[in-house]
Amino acid sequence: MINIAVLGYGTIGSGVVEVIDKNSDGISKKVGDEIRIKHVLDLRDFPGDRVESILVHDFDIILNDPEVTIVVEVMGGVEPAYTFVKKCLLAGKSVCTSNKELVAAHGPELVKIAKERNINFLFEASVGGAIPIIRPLCSSVTADKILEIKGILNGTTNYILTQMDTQGWDFDKALSKAQELGYAERNPEADIEGHDACRKIAILSSLAFGRNVNYEDIYTEGISKITAMDILYARKMDCKIKLLASSENIDGKYYAMVAPFLVKSSHPLSGVSGVFNAIFVKGSEIDDLMFYGSGAGKLPTACAVVADVIDAARHLNENIQTIWSEEGLALTGCENATRRFFVRVSGKRSGCEAKINEEFGEVDYIEPEEDTEGFGFVTPALAEKSFDEHLRNIPNVLGRIRFE
Amino acid sequence: MINIAVLGYGTIGSGVVEVIDKNSDGISKKVGDEIRIKHVLDLRDFPGDRVESILVHDFDIILNDPEVTIVVEVMGGVEPAYTFVKKCLLAGKSVCTSNKELVAAHGPELVKIAKERNINFLFEASVGGAIPIIRPLCSSVTADKILEIKGILNGTTNYILTQMDTQGWDFDKALSKAQELGYAERNPEADIEGHDACRKIAILSSLAFGRNVNYEDIYTEGISKITAMDILYARKMDCKIKLLASSENIDGKYYAMVAPFLVKSSHPLSGVSGVFNAIFVKGSEIDDLMFYGSGAGKLPTACAVVADVIDAARHLNENIQTIWSEEGLALTGCENATRRFFVRVSGKRSGCEAKINEEFGEVDYIEPEEDTEGFGFVTPALAEKSFDEHLRNIPNVLGRIRFE
Repeated sequence: MINIAVLGYGTIGSGVVEVIDKNSDGISKKVGDEIRIKHVLDLRDFPGDRVESILVHDFDIILNDPEVTIVVEVMGGVEPAYTFVKKCLLAGKSVCTSNKELVAAHGPELVKIAKERNINFLFEASVGGAIPIIRPLCSSVTADKILEIKGILNGTTNYILTQMDTQGWDFDKALSKAQELGYAERNPEADIEGHDACRKIAILSSLAFGRNVNYEDIYTEGISKITAMDILYARKMDCKIKLLASSENIDGKYYAMVAPFLVKSSHPLSGVSGVFNAIFVKGSEIDDLMFYGSGAGKLPTACAVVADVIDAARHLNENIQTIWSEEGLALTGCENATRRFFVRVSGKRSGCEAKINEEFGEVDYIEPEEDTEGFGFVTPALAEKSFDEHLRNIPNVLGRIRFE
Repeated sequence: MINIAVLGYGTIGSGVVEVIDKNSDGISKKVGDEIRIKHVLDLRDFPGDRVESILVHDFDIILNDPEVTIVVEVMGGVEPAYTFVKKCLLAGKSVCTSNKELVAAHGPELVKIAKERNINFLFEASVGGAIPIIRPLCSSVTADKILEIKGILNGTTNYILTQMDTQGWDFDKALSKAQELGYAERNPEADIEGHDACRKIAILSSLAFGRNVNYEDIYTEGISKITAMDILYARKMDCKIKLLASSENIDGKYYAMVAPFLVKSSHPLSGVSGVFNAIFVKGSEIDDLMFYGSGAGKLPTACAVVADVIDAARHLNENIQTIWSEEGLALTGCENATRRFFVRVSGKRSGCEAKINEEFGEVDYIEPEEDTEGFGFVTPALAEKSFDEHLRNIPNVLGRIRFE
């Protein structure tokens, strides 16, 4: 019998209990032993609930229970999760978490403690919900040099962009609908401004490149400025607008960014719609890999957490090697990254054409919708810095979106 | 220092040597020790080649070398691979293989021997080339009940079908081109008749369902009867024709099949083109997952083998639990599987319409291309057995393809 404790009985926590209850036979077979949920920590009471008799309000009961060998942390947020998780690891208990804020902020330290104690700190559910991506990065794509990771890592923003595209809604309406359906929080900033995706690409990049990428170093731009008009122009260019989180190793220089991009409809990421997530990985020899699936949701995420519990139970006194050095990886600024840009301008094309061509050389003009004012154009590939300098000289610019 | 031996210096074997040579620093870091290729077994000589000095012709040198702890088997075919691999495992050496014939025929026995000896038999590269799918099935999708696996598992046939679609070629021309480019063997039967995909879905199904699926029990149909006309009809129906290998758990009954299917363009598998592979996995709680990547090729496949070598080196005297019972899983015959069928008929529609409607009820007629004789129709969903019975009564049938 392996005793576990669950910290936090919210959406994911109750999902973890449900999955373990429902699939206990299969799980026992895979572990070779029975998994028992001994304690659930929450500040609230849940009278009549399945966990009523095992609910505790005091974390120390769990910390001081020598029978508990695996702790599931699904509280979210950095504190008190960090304090609790660190204490558990120091006490020799393995920890499985879905908490990307915690992992992005303290991953290397917690991985190191687990290694020193010969136990495990596992976090498959912190990126991509049910999609296996952490374990493949650590155990499957190990023979090759990873050159690029590019993903749709936030289901909320992908739902909003999909609705704007398919329903013709503006951003506010799509956001309201996402909130109504529970896909977006009442305070949606972490999702729509790209902070959630930023933490996730920091985690993936750290594992792919073997050194720590600080999420605060990653240039991050959200989707709140994307308009219904941008979506119409995207369609004219046979593109979808997607919030992409990406990192690249180009000749030993590392770049990372979160921003909305125009993605050609022929690119597999353009077909990832609604709350689904997908992650592209390019290796030096293995070519492209893509991992696709439910990026969020109670039970899919809970299944990823429980898979980590199974792995931790199979490796009770043995560290599964996760290479995440505390040594920082210096990112090269995105101002040197080269790509094409789409620019939307108000007013008549005839009045600006000479100036635009003077600044950018030969551009592709995109005709506006009928009865709409303004026009768009696509620049040749150029460095972001140079693009910004030239763009300053163009009057009446309404917005710009990068091309994938 | 960890000493390994490579059995077979063909395409994959030379790729394994190349990947280990090229990425030795990264690999050593991940293993925590140096990997040295001590012997390479091949019947041929390779004067002047990097392996000249370590080449052996006698398998017993490897078997009897106590320094060799990991053996890579990349010879292909059941014998002598099976004899060699079994001897290595019995001698306490872990084995990593890309050989799907071997794994499909003897997987459970070899997994069992490895477990008894506390070593490992790993075979990530046997399905899907560079795509991590074996390890995710064994270690990541463990908390959920798997209901369905459906994949494009053979790059050769997918290349042929893609060329027929995009170039308008007939089957023979596309096959010749595939042979010219080295994507198809001179004797292409194993690929085009679906035997290769059949072995791969048997392996995946065994791991997903926890009991042994005998590949000989799986109904298998290849693509050699697919015509350029079928492709034209598929396009009219907004479909691609794909060779799908699938298995399902429907209310405790297990079905498996390899056959060409009409796949709607909205389905992510329809966009998988050329030599790429993709595998869909549906779980009870996790919803759909998809894994996509290079399904073959020297270096992608070699990277998957070397990732297994790294894993074996990290677990030298410890078995990584692979659940593949020798107990057989009885498949339910496909005659009870229910789906829609596309049927192509020669002659005029007016002459057969009454008969078709009498047999199948309301069908959707598909208009032929201009200047072509014949027509097509799509049946309502019905059991395969019932479809076959009714089809017998329709005159002038040219062919039929299942709908995904």
